Amino acid sequence: MIIRIQCSDRVGLVAGVSDVLAKNGMNIESMREFVDREAGKFFLRVTADKEPASGKLFDQLSAVLPENASIDISRRTQEKKVVVLVTKEYHCLTDILTRNHFNTLGAKVQAVIGNHNVLRDICDRFNVPFIYVSHEEKNKEVFENELKTVLQSYSFDYIILAKFMRILSDEFVSGFFNRVINIHHSFLPAFVGASPYRQAFERGVKLIGATAHFVTNLLDEGPIIEQQIIRVNHTYTPRDMVVAGKEIETAVLAKALTLVFEDRVFVSNNKTVVFD
Amino acid sequence: MIIRIQCSDRVGLVAGVSDVLAKNGMNIESMREFVDREAGKFFLRVTADKEPASGKLFDQLSAVLPENASIDISRRTQEKKVVVLVTKEYHCLTDILTRNHFNTLGAKVQAVIGNHNVLRDICDRFNVPFIYVSHEEKNKEVFENELKTVLQSYSFDYIILAKFMRILSDEFVSGFFNRVINIHHSFLPAFVGASPYRQAFERGVKLIGATAHFVTNLLDEGPIIEQQIIRVNHTYTPRDMVVAGKEIETAVLAKALTLVFEDRVFVSNNKTVVFD
Amino acid sequence: MIIRIQCSDRVGLVAGVSDVLAKNGMNIESMREFVDREAGKFFLRVTADKEPASGKLFDQLSAVLPENASIDISRRTQEKKVVVLVTKEYHCLTDILTRNHFNTLGAKVQAVIGNHNVLRDICDRFNVPFIYVSHEEKNKEVFENELKTVLQSYSFDYIILAKFMRILSDEFVSGFFNRVINIHHSFLPAFVGASPYRQAFERGVKLIGATAHFVTNLLDEGPIIEQQIIRVNHTYTPRDMVVAGKEIETAVLAKALTLVFEDRVFVSNNKTVVFD
Amino acid sequence: MIIRIQCSDRVGLVAGVSDVLAKNGMNIESMREFVDREAGKFFLRVTADKEPASGKLFDQLSAVLPENASIDISRRTQEKKVVVLVTKEYHCLTDILTRNHFNTLGAKVQAVIGNHNVLRDICDRFNVPFIYVSHEEKNKEVFENELKTVLQSYSFDYIILAKFMRILSDEFVSGFFNRVINIHHSFLPAFVGASPYRQAFERGVKLIGATAHFVTNLLDEGPIIEQQIIRVNHTYTPRDMVVAGKEIETAVLAKALTLVFEDRVFVSNNKTVVFD
Repeated sequence: MIIRIQCSDRVGLVAGVSDVLAKNGMNIESMREFVDREAGKFFLRVTADKEPASGKLFDQLSAVLPENASIDISRRTQEKKVVVLVTKEYHCLTDILTRNHFNTLGAKVQAVIGNHNVLRDICDRFNVPFIYVSHEEKNKEVFENELKTVLQSYSFDYIILAKFMRILSDEFVSGFFNRVINIHHSFLPAFVGASPYRQAFERGVKLIGATAHFVTNLLDEGPIIEQQIIRVNHTYTPRDMVVAGKEIETAVLAKALTLVFEDRVFVSNNKTVVFD
Repeated sequence: MIIRIQCSDRVGLVAGVSDVLAKNGMNIESMREFVDREAGKFFLRVTADKEPASGKLFDQLSAVLPENASIDISRRTQEKKVVVLVTKEYHCLTDILTRNHFNTLGAKVQAVIGNHNVLRDICDRFNVPFIYVSHEEKNKEVFENELKTVLQSYSFDYIILAKFMRILSDEFVSGFFNRVINIHHSFLPAFVGASPYRQAFERGVKLIGATAHFVTNLLDEGPIIEQQIIRVNHTYTPRDMVVAGKEIETAVLAKALTLVFEDRVFVSNNKTVVFD
Repeated sequence: MIIRIQCSDRVGLVAGVSDVLAKNGMNIESMREFVDREAGKFFLRVTADKEPASGKLFDQLSAVLPENASIDISRRTQEKKVVVLVTKEYHCLTDILTRNHFNTLGAKVQAVIGNHNVLRDICDRFNVPFIYVSHEEKNKEVFENELKTVLQSYSFDYIILAKFMRILSDEFVSGFFNRVINIHHSFLPAFVGASPYRQAFERGVKLIGATAHFVTNLLDEGPIIEQQIIRVNHTYTPRDMVVAGKEIETAVLAKALTLVFEDRVFVSNNKTVVFD
Repeated sequence: MIIRIQCSDRVGLVAGVSDVLAKNGMNIESMREFVDREAGKFFLRVTADKEPASGKLFDQLSAVLPENASIDISRRTQEKKVVVLVTKEYHCLTDILTRNHFNTLGAKVQAVIGNHNVLRDICDRFNVPFIYVSHEEKNKEVFENELKTVLQSYSFDYIILAKFMRILSDEFVSGFFNRVINIHHSFLPAFVGASPYRQAFERGVKLIGATAHFVTNLLDEGPIIEQQIIRVNHTYTPRDMVVAGKEIETAVLAKALTLVFEDRVFVSNNKTVVFD
């Protein structure tokens, strides 16, 4: 079992939780705890070796925690479900599809939605449904309503923006709070906006990076899950930087998805707590 | 306060410990727990925000833990004391001396002992006692007895071998169990033994590393605390590799010492558990 | 054009080569040169912006170089051809197949040969021929002869061992000198041999790595092309190390293949010169 | 000898230069060449094994190069001279002083100038002159004139801003074109300006970095020499980020200085070409 708790801090929280687990005969295998002292918040992730003796674990935990406590209890075998949104670039999607195919993603891809029709073939090769929802000649509201209609036909935990190049409205995003994960083509907060690799080239940087983050109504400003960088040098053209960028984007998104799917990421105050 | 516990595993340990802390009015700021399931061992590191209400914290903790439990309670302000053993190379020693001088080492250097007399000057510059104990024309027993005599005149928690190029006997090492820290000039277990950089050059490796470890009676085989690497390439001569190696040796030893002095390292079964 | 030269060193080699290029109206875009002074060897890689004016570039270069000089001249558009040998593990193969599919491998996969029949499906999905050559109930000579028979039906520049778990004989390897590339599941020279991740777990290392190298008659001892590492810690089981190892193996092999396919790697004296 | 050439590009430059070297009996040990095709610029760094036969190397090289060519010829034994400007932070300065002391800096520190008087002691310990030039109760012009007066009493190649917290005027900087090196406390262009670690903390980044660059009249916008990063996480307070930042600042500045002092860095078009 994985038990995740997020609440306001006070003395005795760990004692209360661990006492409940012990009374259920559950042995704690690993425990990570963090108190954000500025914000007065408490975060706990516990893995335990067995199912609780009683069926009342949630209620028992609630009884020892503050009223506002967020409590998640999941079996490790519960696989997450995801829908992937893409545009034209294949690198992140293909990595997700192959991990999905070989059951190492930690989630099951329910469908891929593209606002262009170019990535259907690779989805077909892995027997994953591809739905084409064009944004052309539509205003954002109409486009997003069509997206939502497609999404409603699937059950899913997360939406992954795997190089989806449309900006989603606040209204759309707020409907999936902390459930939309994006890969951003730069080491945020550097080079926000368009053509980050051109910007990086012009600036002559020696490192380029990528950032996976939850999407909020603040463009490129949501809680960061993972960042990595690679070295570049003067011989890199903007095009070379794009190629190198794809490698790092793929790696960063893969790492972030693993962290999220293993229930290692908490969101609070536009930042993440990651028990990696 | 930092509380560290190491014992055999059983259900309810975290509950017991956190209950004791709560009853002492101590709020847990951070908690790291690990169970080595193969070995059946339990490791816990807790930081709490205040002193215990009662003066009986140790006894109270003992009462809820297995008999064999190792319990360490320390104030964060308790600075470790160390003695440094060196030969001729200055890079690790100088880094330690400067951190010591500016109070960022997390420990206080009581003395430096050299089996050559070449590093006295740099110690003098930082007003740290340097004691010359030559190994020449002595058998190991005589040499180590002289070392011990000098060591006995200081109070210390750890002995740091900062490029000390003599192999210490089992008998000597066992007198300071898990208290002797060495920096090894390779990415162990590669290139064990002499001239690792020459070996690395001959093999044409693309990375070289360094390893900080506790010293046991097994030469170069003690519990690893920290390892890092840096890239090298075909243009590196063996001499260039030595220069690069010094940078990485300095960085790895500094990192390992920080981890140890912050009470983040447990030793068990010839391996370490590091709550970093 | 990419021009690669490897020969014994003497004064005036660069002058001779660059004079020939200038007389052919070729502008040098990038030049990397290295002299291995211990071995007295000269290595040069030049990229030039156009085709030579005359059709006699090779002869003109030969005229200014020592007799033993190795001279390679290739158009950048000349794609390498490769055959991939596999056993059961999919991670390196799938990465190669997707890069091949999207034309970013820098080579074209002619066929995949497996000594087990488990990776046929993924090859089928990418329309790449898969040939099953079982090693069972055959001695090595018979098995390798069957491999050679299959190989002879393809034109290829390199053989890639993408987690091919059979040891090839000296005789086989020597038939493809410096043309067989292997990914080894450890940071060589550490943990040579079987179960490197189990070995790494037992030793409690803090980093694990992977090594891509040319295969020679010395098992795991051929010229190293690329090495990378990732951090691990006490929470990693041997199984977790295997999972982490697959990520690093995939990345290291991909990097090594890019270097080789871009003609950036020279082999000399059981080491590589890599102009990256 | 190290020969560095920077000029507009045309066919035959390498041929011309290498022919001159060959005629002087100089064997090329290593050669790095780069053409910036957008800017039409040519960069060359050659190391040769001996002194030229004639005393006219510079003139002979000029004869085969465009008129505007910048030609640097230096003996490897020619040590650079530097003056270091500091404020209160010791970490970069101490690293420079120890490398200077043990002759591994690749340059000799002529003097340290502080706008506060707090780092005199550490300079005294290494017998390096410290000059206190307060900025207080002076306008920038007066302060910088005092700096210049002190600087004029020393011969030096570079000014190193080792955590010098005053912004220098365009007029001052332009007097030392491409000779002033700064360490900036962030992964530029992220977190430009004050309190970058506080900004990084607020944003919840997973990496922090540092940037060494030449100082131009564009604040924090000069040519980047080197950048590196380290991982941070949710447990880092702003203060912890400052501590981690000091480690990376020290490492980045040390690396950048090595590159510059070994004549590996060219500046062009507000970017650097680094032959590392």
